[in-house]
Amino acid sequence: MAKNNKQKIEEILTRGVEKLIKKKSLLKKLKSGRRLKIKYGVDPTTKDLHLGHAVIYEKLRQFQQLGHKIIFVIGDFTGRFGDPTQKLKVRKLRSKQEVREMAKNYLRQVGKILDLKKLEARHNSEWFDKMSAEDLLRLMGHFTTLRMLERDTFQERIKKRREIRLHEPVYPVLQAYDSVVLKTDIEIGGSDQLFNCLRGRDLQKDFSQFPQDILTVKILIGTDGKKKMSQSFGNYIGIEEKLEIQYGKIMSIPDKLIIDYFELVTRVPLIEVKNSKKDLKQGKVNPRDLKAKLAREIVSIYHGKKAALRAEKEFQRVFKEKKLPTKIPEIKIKEKSLNILDLLVKIKLASSKSEAKRLILQKGVKIDGKLQDNWQKIIKIKNGTIVQVGKRKFIKIV
Amino acid sequence: MAKNNKQKIEEILTRGVEKLIKKKSLLKKLKSGRRLKIKYGVDPTTKDLHLGHAVIYEKLRQFQQLGHKIIFVIGDFTGRFGDPTQKLKVRKLRSKQEVREMAKNYLRQVGKILDLKKLEARHNSEWFDKMSAEDLLRLMGHFTTLRMLERDTFQERIKKRREIRLHEPVYPVLQAYDSVVLKTDIEIGGSDQLFNCLRGRDLQKDFSQFPQDILTVKILIGTDGKKKMSQSFGNYIGIEEKLEIQYGKIMSIPDKLIIDYFELVTRVPLIEVKNSKKDLKQGKVNPRDLKAKLAREIVSIYHGKKAALRAEKEFQRVFKEKKLPTKIPEIKIKEKSLNILDLLVKIKLASSKSEAKRLILQKGVKIDGKLQDNWQKIIKIKNGTIVQVGKRKFIKIV
Repeated sequence: MAKNNKQKIEEILTRGVEKLIKKKSLLKKLKSGRRLKIKYGVDPTTKDLHLGHAVIYEKLRQFQQLGHKIIFVIGDFTGRFGDPTQKLKVRKLRSKQEVREMAKNYLRQVGKILDLKKLEARHNSEWFDKMSAEDLLRLMGHFTTLRMLERDTFQERIKKRREIRLHEPVYPVLQAYDSVVLKTDIEIGGSDQLFNCLRGRDLQKDFSQFPQDILTVKILIGTDGKKKMSQSFGNYIGIEEKLEIQYGKIMSIPDKLIIDYFELVTRVPLIEVKNSKKDLKQGKVNPRDLKAKLAREIVSIYHGKKAALRAEKEFQRVFKEKKLPTKIPEIKIKEKSLNILDLLVKIKLASSKSEAKRLILQKGVKIDGKLQDNWQKIIKIKNGTIVQVGKRKFIKIV
Repeated sequence: MAKNNKQKIEEILTRGVEKLIKKKSLLKKLKSGRRLKIKYGVDPTTKDLHLGHAVIYEKLRQFQQLGHKIIFVIGDFTGRFGDPTQKLKVRKLRSKQEVREMAKNYLRQVGKILDLKKLEARHNSEWFDKMSAEDLLRLMGHFTTLRMLERDTFQERIKKRREIRLHEPVYPVLQAYDSVVLKTDIEIGGSDQLFNCLRGRDLQKDFSQFPQDILTVKILIGTDGKKKMSQSFGNYIGIEEKLEIQYGKIMSIPDKLIIDYFELVTRVPLIEVKNSKKDLKQGKVNPRDLKAKLAREIVSIYHGKKAALRAEKEFQRVFKEKKLPTKIPEIKIKEKSLNILDLLVKIKLASSKSEAKRLILQKGVKIDGKLQDNWQKIIKIKNGTIVQVGKRKFIKIV
């Protein structure tokens, strides 16, 4: 164990950290030289991971690099019911098979950040599938109903008169029991997991175990600069997104997020991040250049360094030097001429004629580099005509 | 089926009945000529049954006599957790074995009222012991948490800030599932069971079954004339109590309870009970005589007719004709004379000298039929001396 690696321990306990429970105990454990069991549990019901998820995995990676054991709990049992966190609606119940499929896909993506070979992946169906109704009832007896309903998501539902199904307050009990089975030293989670992680401490004490410590990470704000990054808000950057799209999305975030992104989803040393923050504040660095560095750092993680440099060049070609991308999708068209609206719909740059018209009026359509402002225009179609919508969508007609 | 037995059906739906849900449907079922499945469930955690319990069993007996099938559900699973009904404290969890033992003893006593051969006794461990934690969670998903907490016993606990363990609101779900497994037509219960029985209707509908109807019975007031009959209030008449004690306790109830007892725990036809009520009101019958009839009727059920007549005679000897009982316990004493206080303690008619003194001052002590009022008196002891304390305690010194 990197027992004496004071600086790395310090970074683990501060970088991207929202809350530590209990800090003293955490420090003691980390300095003990013991290989710690770091638990992170997930209901693999998300199809595509994005940078919002990566915050946790980067934190786990830091522990992994200090030699600690990451126990990745795949909630293939709990995932059938779903954690009611932040959901105002009752979750639908899923089949075991459905959740297993989702888990495979999930783990493959996690492999982009963590070393899967050093990670212990456990399915909680391992202990819950053989648990009887009686054992579950006895386990539930460790907690009180009102305590469970104190959880903010339930309080919100009660206020809004939305229903809480009877099985839903059991979720934290199951997550807590995972910690008992695994004898977890530290549980890592998002801030919305704090309540559940605390129940793990309670239950471990009831089972005469030393209670786990808890580290929750900060929330990553999405590309809109406003809300938490989430697929449902459309403000996400997927970790498996195509090179150019990923690069472009990062370049589109508001400047105020740059430093947070450096801290939460890159591996640039914290000291460097702090320096960049200072430079930015004092105007010593152009935000655009810093963002380009950020994009290169993040894209390198998911697509490799070479690809990141390629994406950077391409981005500069198209956006800075206003040149055409090197690769443009091609579409064949029989007609010799077409009304511009029909053309845009035909090559799928607009979903309807009315959208096509709107795009033209908003000055978002170019043909062979020339801005189009007449939506009634008839376009003569030549081989090699390039139609552009917005900054990033190009089609070559062949 | 006694399809056309209009009068008996009428009696079933009125005698001792507190609530019917739904009356029309109940009537239809009873008149259908079908052999109905009548469910009554009990957690056999009570050691000695008393007349308060008998109210239900007499009702079940009526159904049994019409040819319907009584399904007696022994909650040997649910009994491990206990129904939180009317309990303000969290129930302790019991072992399976403990509950099984209790069940055997319980059923033997039920056999004093119901024909055990015609009754189908089922243990709900039959289906719950093989139920998985997952199945239980899915079952719980049929209900909402707040609905379950509406139950009066929980509301009371919330008001008094007493805790409700997380497994407790699951109890009604389990009881409801019994009805689904057994495809119950009618569930019988005490008034405190109404909530749970209603959940049975809910769940049966979810399982596409025709919902059970519900019949709840009235509460029997104890010998004190005030509270519900209950072992913990000490106002009960046990169905297995000794002949004379049972008879004597019935003779001790307040007159205002006589008619209720006739209705709830005897088999005297309802029309006769109504006549007695009228007679009593108009002063045509002496309450004492009516109570003697009541005692004879009840004691006949539990000890047989002959024994009942014997108890009646004995009671008259001692209480009406002030004669000595036919059998008096004997105690040997060596001393020739004793202070009266020492004597009472020695023969265990008083637990201490101060109690003995009090009994004498309250004019509760007779020796050979003579009232004793001097607590300093020295009693000369002869063979055959009879000491009496109160109305019913006698000792013969030999």
